[in-house]
Order: sequence, then structure tokens, then C-alpha cells
Amino acid sequence: MRQSMTLIPTLRELPSDAEIKSHQLLLRAGFIKQIASGVYSYMPLAKRALDHIEQIIREEMENAGAAELLLPALQPAELWQESGRWYTYGEELMRINDRHDRSFSLGPTHEEVITSIVSDSVPSYKRLPITLYQIQTKFRDEKRPRFGLLRGREFIMKDAYSFHTSEESLDEVYQKMHQAYTNIFTRCGLDFRAVLADSGSIGGKDTQEFMVLSEIGEDTIAYSDASSYAANIEMAEVHQVYERSDEPEKELSKVETPGKKTISEVSGFLNVQPSHVIKSLVLIVDEEPIMVLVRGDHEINDIKVKNALDASSVEFADEERTKELLNCSFGSIGPVNLPATLKIVADNAVEAMVNAVCGANEDDFHYINVIPGRDFHVDKYADLRFIQEGDPSPDGNGTIRFARGIEVGHIFKLGTTYSKAMSATFLDENGKAHPYIMGCYGIGVSRTLAAVAEQFNDENGLIWPTAIAPYDIHLIPVNMKDTEQKDLAEKLYTELKEHRYNVLFDDRNERPGVKFKDSDLIGMPVRVTVGKKAAEGIVEVKIRKSGEMQEVKAGDLLEVLTNIFKEL
Amino acid sequence: MRQSMTLIPTLRELPSDAEIKSHQLLLRAGFIKQIASGVYSYMPLAKRALDHIEQIIREEMENAGAAELLLPALQPAELWQESGRWYTYGEELMRINDRHDRSFSLGPTHEEVITSIVSDSVPSYKRLPITLYQIQTKFRDEKRPRFGLLRGREFIMKDAYSFHTSEESLDEVYQKMHQAYTNIFTRCGLDFRAVLADSGSIGGKDTQEFMVLSEIGEDTIAYSDASSYAANIEMAEVHQVYERSDEPEKELSKVETPGKKTISEVSGFLNVQPSHVIKSLVLIVDEEPIMVLVRGDHEINDIKVKNALDASSVEFADEERTKELLNCSFGSIGPVNLPATLKIVADNAVEAMVNAVCGANEDDFHYINVIPGRDFHVDKYADLRFIQEGDPSPDGNGTIRFARGIEVGHIFKLGTTYSKAMSATFLDENGKAHPYIMGCYGIGVSRTLAAVAEQFNDENGLIWPTAIAPYDIHLIPVNMKDTEQKDLAEKLYTELKEHRYNVLFDDRNERPGVKFKDSDLIGMPVRVTVGKKAAEGIVEVKIRKSGEMQEVKAGDLLEVLTNIFKEL
Repeated sequence: MRQSMTLIPTLRELPSDAEIKSHQLLLRAGFIKQIASGVYSYMPLAKRALDHIEQIIREEMENAGAAELLLPALQPAELWQESGRWYTYGEELMRINDRHDRSFSLGPTHEEVITSIVSDSVPSYKRLPITLYQIQTKFRDEKRPRFGLLRGREFIMKDAYSFHTSEESLDEVYQKMHQAYTNIFTRCGLDFRAVLADSGSIGGKDTQEFMVLSEIGEDTIAYSDASSYAANIEMAEVHQVYERSDEPEKELSKVETPGKKTISEVSGFLNVQPSHVIKSLVLIVDEEPIMVLVRGDHEINDIKVKNALDASSVEFADEERTKELLNCSFGSIGPVNLPATLKIVADNAVEAMVNAVCGANEDDFHYINVIPGRDFHVDKYADLRFIQEGDPSPDGNGTIRFARGIEVGHIFKLGTTYSKAMSATFLDENGKAHPYIMGCYGIGVSRTLAAVAEQFNDENGLIWPTAIAPYDIHLIPVNMKDTEQKDLAEKLYTELKEHRYNVLFDDRNERPGVKFKDSDLIGMPVRVTVGKKAAEGIVEVKIRKSGEMQEVKAGDLLEVLTNIFKEL
Repeated sequence: MRQSMTLIPTLRELPSDAEIKSHQLLLRAGFIKQIASGVYSYMPLAKRALDHIEQIIREEMENAGAAELLLPALQPAELWQESGRWYTYGEELMRINDRHDRSFSLGPTHEEVITSIVSDSVPSYKRLPITLYQIQTKFRDEKRPRFGLLRGREFIMKDAYSFHTSEESLDEVYQKMHQAYTNIFTRCGLDFRAVLADSGSIGGKDTQEFMVLSEIGEDTIAYSDASSYAANIEMAEVHQVYERSDEPEKELSKVETPGKKTISEVSGFLNVQPSHVIKSLVLIVDEEPIMVLVRGDHEINDIKVKNALDASSVEFADEERTKELLNCSFGSIGPVNLPATLKIVADNAVEAMVNAVCGANEDDFHYINVIPGRDFHVDKYADLRFIQEGDPSPDGNGTIRFARGIEVGHIFKLGTTYSKAMSATFLDENGKAHPYIMGCYGIGVSRTLAAVAEQFNDENGLIWPTAIAPYDIHLIPVNMKDTEQKDLAEKLYTELKEHRYNVLFDDRNERPGVKFKDSDLIGMPVRVTVGKKAAEGIVEVKIRKSGEMQEVKAGDLLEVLTNIFKEL
């Protein structure tokens, strides 16, 4: 493509409202333009990069046995009412009425539509399993759109849905999708992890998020430094074995701790390690107050409390409620001498504590030399805390480290949540109806573009991996008014295109400084510069990533490029 | 693709609400499924056909020098308020409020967005002209969605916009687009015409519609039987020269015509040809009543009246208004003895009339032997009637015939309508600001798919042209449980894919009748059947279009197919 015929609106100045690199660079390099908060135009370079990402996705989806279709953005409210999400999705669901006052959602996802179609089209087990996917513009009215394409209100998704007669069949496709996603993000050149995630309110068992590692990520990942283990910190199980100290048990005793409330205040005042203090909190579990204990150096993970107690809702009691129950303030509560009606659950680490400290349910007093089991009864021990850096990896290999990640993909065993709600059934061999067992599998396509931009850049601009780069080569005659330069550049342009390179040809009458600055900013993998040595038939080849530069005879260019692209 | 892994929900029964063939067949062949009135899912076969149409469009757009981008569907109301269309577009514009109660349109077209982007990005004449296009889902809340994909509420469009410093530059790109469109619809295999169209209320001069000829088309086209001339009938100029009869002029005379009102009643009663009667109507032109005359066998074209009088609005006066003015009913009005304040304009044909008949502005009476000029004054003669079949073609070649057409494309010189309204300007060589001169160019992509289906089918189903067909070859083992058939089919499947054929492999365990019926219905260009002669290494090749069938040795299959696809 001749640069004069496309639109690459590069900016010299840093956009003031762009906080993160990918957002700044995609704006500055003329890849995107904001039309409204969280709504962007994809300019020609971005469109080409998106095409490449989409092509990779299509190839891997096809390999995984999925068939592509395209569902509408407008979805009748009735479908969402059937699934119940019309009432629960909240303000993120964009809703619109047509001229006859019928309500529609603007699809943020398509479980309802696809379930309705499959239910209508695949009545029998004979035609199952089936996996269908689409690449489509989606809408979600984010409360705080930000980070450019990372959290927008109109964005491009790949969403796939699979339908099965059995859990085994779902497992199989789930694994295929896991492999496809691994291939996709590997081909995109991304540094990512497949991370165990919370299945949230939808139910279902297995779910994994594909996270691109990045400081600006909104999620924290716990990963092993020695294996492929990775999980959302909310989900990471703690498999640590806590050794009980063999120090002699001392007698329980109440001590004054005037004004000391936090773990660090109490442990400092009593001159013990925070790990010797029992942290006690009241949580409201399915409307019943329960006391939860963890070690002073640990944090309670309410999702684990919820799972351990098989509850459907868990929240932390506020100070007022706590006072009502125990007649003391937050910092002074503890498990000793509680009313028998108040259940106690504790993290496994608490079981190993000896001569510990805890609140005395009386302001300004704590107990010391507390022995769990001796001084209070624990109804249940379980893994109730957040994993921490330095903990052993739950898979037994290596030590846990933390990283931040951008979620670019999500695979999910939905089970029968939607099919049951929507009465979507197939007939088995005996003519008996069962709800489809379903999986769903998403990729944020426009978000992946931003994630690549976030991982690949330097102080001069973007550095596209070859698989995604809008063009392979940026061909730049330094001076288009110089006939020798122009002619050689035109000749090379034709030749390179014939050899199936995607070439961006900077045929603009701009100063060399502008051309080179733009070129670094937009970041094609290889730059071929036709300058003063054009008369001698010599051009310059520069690799954007390494900055490596070499002079090459025009006749050798193709060979040199073949080698460079082999390496890149 | 293995048929067991994709979803082709063919129907045995005719969908009750589908009136036209393309709609019926696309539903029956499992290409589309309706989700709501005018809102469809594109099932896997349709998605592949759309991909092929889009690929053809992309290639031709690139050849025409256009760059692809992707604009958002959500468009801030402010942009549409700037252009004024927020207030004039009416109920077809779908509108939505976000959670902060800001208004957006769901784009039916993108003049506003693209003008705003170019205005922001291309400040100087140096970077003009530029042509940008996208292929995108659009929304239009049709009052009466119908005919399946032909008039939907959510549909796929290719829309392109060009920006220029001069009319000459616009002319050049308009011509390039004309050529690109001709190439696109030719490559799609369509029988179409480029038709002169009305530029409507937008202003601008040249505009052409690309019409696929079809009985079910909603527009009537007047075309020459001997040249490429074609125009929307509203637009077709009449270049006929009317010879004045040399019969002697007779004396004006009033005759009784009791109860005779229509042209045919009056001409029958007076025993003259309808072409001897003057048809008189009152039109309200920019709020002023004007009498318009045409010959009794002609029809008044109000658009021509509007253009001839350089008016901005024209409508037919109702009977009440007419009575108020002339004190007689519709069928009795005429141009003789009118109040001087009432202007008369007449079609050119009227000037040549001799001894004609017209209403006497008195119920139950007509004049005979009326001579225009002698018996009444005509303020202006012009071409004011609809062209008719049999008229000479306005370009001087051949005779006019009528056909009906489906509009699949539209090219349009917008001029400065949008750039002026939105204050979108570039700076010329002297630093002076001018509004961009613009063109816009649309193709209904999903509508083109339907138009192809409408043109190519028979009683058994669809017949896809090779360029658009979802798959080139439908490979059908008659009995998948027969090992010889299955093995040979699998071998051919691999081989054909290796030779870059797109193959749909019917690996289902269905009865042969079902497989063949489905195959004819979905209409891939070539069917390869592996049946009982598999043991002898013989397969059957059938061309869908002609029904031609031949037995072929498996070893010769590739050669035979090469020859067939050369011809198709």
C-alpha cells in the first residue's frame, strides 16, 4: 500500500488522557481514534493488525473443529428474559427499543441466541457435539471505560459455544480449546499464562483465563516459578503443610492492650510476630454470622469461605453488626468464650498455632497463650486464606510468585445453566430429552491487539511481532523527488509485493526526519530505506526490534529479507 | 469441512412467511435463521458465502485505491446533530442512551463519523484525495422489514467515502468506483445494470444505483434494448420528438360528457384516442397551486415537475383543494379559461396536440378541438412525464424497455453537503480553508448474497456461482458405513483439500435421499458422489447448474475438476 493512499494519522504529542503505553502508542501511531468514551475507530493499520489476529484465530478454531457463523448484535429481550440475564446483567447491558417499542439488547455475549438456534436446529444426540464460533463487534456499557481498547464499550470478540451430550465430551472440547488458545496467543507472540479462574455466579466447574503478563493488568496472578501452574489469586489453593511448634503450652491469660487494634499494633505491643496473632473476623454467610480465623500474617479469602461452607453469599460484617454481636470493636474480637450459637471456621494455618494471641471480645484486652482446640472449638478447618508470594506452588513444583495480567481469553464449562433456563434439550438414543451440556470460549480480539502493543514497544514506538504486523516491510525512499531513489524504490515495491511481502511504501513528500520518526512509531518489523546510495544500488535494512542495521545491494535484498524473517 | 462438524439446518417445509425465492431458499437451505423481524443469524454456509463476496469487494476496493478501516456502530448524537440528520432521519435511525444518558445512534451509514475523522486527520490539500472504506454491520429500523436479507434491520454494508479538493478529482474517483462496482457484481456472477438515480434530498449531482435485475425488485428500471443506458424510471429523461399533426384546426367547442371523469371514460365516450385527451392536474409547488398538463396516455412525473420549476417541494393537490380553486371535480378540470393567477406548465407532448379534448372546469362538460397556444397559454413546456416502454432511449440508441431491479450498490457525489454542515475543511496551497468535496459509495453485502440467491436457483434449491459458493465441491459418500466408500471418500477429501479446493464432506450417517436432497438444496457448484462403484475406484461428478453427470475414475478426478471449474 502506498502511504499516500492510506490514512495513518500519527500524532507528535502524547494524548493527555491516555494512561498506559498501549493506549498512548495506538493513538500516537494513528492506529485508533476515539469517537466517544470507550468507543474507537480502527484506522487502516489497526484494521490490518486485527485481520491478522482474526486469521490466526480462525485457523486455530477450524483446527479445533469449530464452525464459523455470525449472529446478530440486536437480540430480542425475550431471549434474555428466558435466561434471566435481562434482570441480572445490570447497566452494562445496552438496551434499545425499536419503533414498535419492542426491547432488544445489544449483545455483549451470545449464549442466549446460540442456545436458541441450536435448540431449534439440533434436536438429536446424533448431531452432537457441535462447536460454533463467531468474530463480532460486542457492546458493554462499562461504568469506567479506560485504557483504550483494553476496556471499551464497543469491542471485537471471538466467542465460541459448544454443545454436548456428556461431561466427557465437554471435557474433550474444553481441552481442544485450551490448546487452540495456547496456540493463538503463542502465535501472536504474547507472554501469557493460562490461569485457573473463579467460575463466579454462573456455576459450572472448570474455567481458565488466558492472561497476558503486564504490570498494568487489572488482575493478580499467582504462578509457580518452576511449573505451568497459574491461578487467579482468588482461586489459588494453598497446599502448605503447617508444622505445629513443639514449644510447651502455656496457660491462657488475659492482658491489657490499651488502644491496640490492628495486628501490627497488637503484635508490636506484645512483642510477638504477626504470625503468632489470630486474626478474627465476622462474616455473614447466607445471612448467618460466622467467625472466621486466619493467622495474623494472612488474609481471608471470602470466595474460599463461600466454597468451604457451600454458601451462596458471603460478606464481611460491618463494625456495627460486629459490635451488636460481640459487644466490642473490630480490633478486639476473638474466638475464646464465644456464645455457643456463633460458629467458628479457621484456616488450616490456625490449627498449628501454639500460645497465640487473640482478641478478648472486650475493648483494650487480648488473650495470650491461646491454644486452638483447648481454648476454643473450631467447627471446620479449611483453606480460607489468599495465597502469598513465597508459598509453595499448589502443584508441588516450585514457589509462588505474583504477576499482573490482562485477560485476553476465557474458557468456561457452562454445564446446563443456560440450556436448563431456556428449556433447550436434545433427545438421547432412547428418545429422552436432556438439557445440552455447554461450554463457552471467548477471546478479546481488540483487547489482544492492545495487549500486544502493551508488550511490544520501546521509547520510539510500537514493535509489532511479524505475525500481527500490519505490514512486513516499511519501504522508505528518503527523497521522493530524487529520481534515482524514487525509481529504485518503485522497483523494489513491485518486486517485494510479487514475493508476497506486505509492503507499506512511504511515497510521501515529507522530510526524512518525519518519515523515520513515523516509521519507528508505527513499528513495522523491517524497514528498507532507499537513500543516497540508491545510485550505487545500495539500500539500508533495519530491524525494528533490535535496531540492527545493514547496507544491502538491491539485488541481494530478497535473500537478506528471507533470512531476517526466518529469524524474527 | 466435515458436515458433521458444521451446522446446516435445512428445512423440509416451506417457511410460511417467506414470500420470495431467495428468502425461502436461504431459510430452507439453512443459510440464515431469523432471530427477530428483519434480524437474522448468518449460519456457517452463509458466513462463507459472505466472506467470498467481501473478499471480492476488498480486492476491487484496493485496486481502486481505497484503504480499509473499521468505524464504530455507536455514534454520538452530537455528530448527527452537526449534520442535521439527527432531526431529519426519522424513525429508521435507531437511537440508544448509555448509562450516563448520553444519546447515540446505531450507525445506518457513516458520513458523519468519517467526515469528523478526516477533518481531524487531513488538514492539508497535500494528503488529498483519500478514499476510505469499511465492511460493517449496519442498523436501520425499517418500518416493514421483509424479503429476508433484502430489507432487514441489521445488515452488512460496504461503505466507502472519498475526500477531494476539486470536482475533477471527485469525478475521477467516482469513475474508478463505477468500474470497481462493475467488476464486483460481474465477479459475483450477477445480471445487473448501473442505473441513473435520483439524488434525492441530499443534493449532489451524479448518482447511480447498481441494480440486479429481478422480478421481485422494488424499483423499476428503464433501460435501452440496444445500449448500456439505464435509469430509474423516475429519472429517465424523455427525448422523444413529437410531430404536430397537420390536420386542420377546428373551432373550440364545449360538449356534454355526463358522468365521464377518467381519461378512458372521456375518450371512450367521445370516441377519440386517449392520446387526444389532455390530462390536467393541479400540483402544489412550493405552496403555490400550478396546473400541469400531460397527454392522456402519459403519466405526470412529479420529480420532473420539481426539477423543471426548480422547486423544493411538489405534491398533488387533493380533490378538496382542487374544487376550492376551480369549482369542479378532479375529472373535469382543464387549462381553458383559467384565472390568470394560475400558472400552467405542460409536457412537451402537449405542444404537438391538435384538436384535443380537455376538461371544461365544469362538472359533466369537456372542451373538444382544443389547440394549445390558441385556446390557453402555457407558461413552460418541459419533459414532465414518466418514460414508457417503447419510447426511444434517451441516449439515441434503441428503445426503452422496463425491468425490475434490486438495488445492491449506490455511488454518489455528495459534494460539500456534509463538509459544509460539519465545518470540515482543508487548507489549499495558499492556506485558505475549503470544505472537502466528497463522494460516498455503498454496497449491500448481505443484500448481494440474497440477490445472488434470487438469480441462481431452480426447483431443487440454490445454485451458487463458483466465486461465491460456500464450498467448491460437495463430496458425498452414499453410505458412510461401507468401508470402501468411506475410505475412498476420506482419501479424496484429503487430496482435494491439498489441491486448494474448498470441500464440504458429507460424513453424516444419513439416508442417500436425505443427502442428495440437502445437496441440491444448498447448491454447491460440483457434487462428487462416492457410491457403489467405489470398489472399482469410480465416482460420480455432477454439475449442479446443468445437472450434467459423469462417472470418473478416482485417479482422473483432479483433472476432470480442473476442466469443469475452468468452464463454470
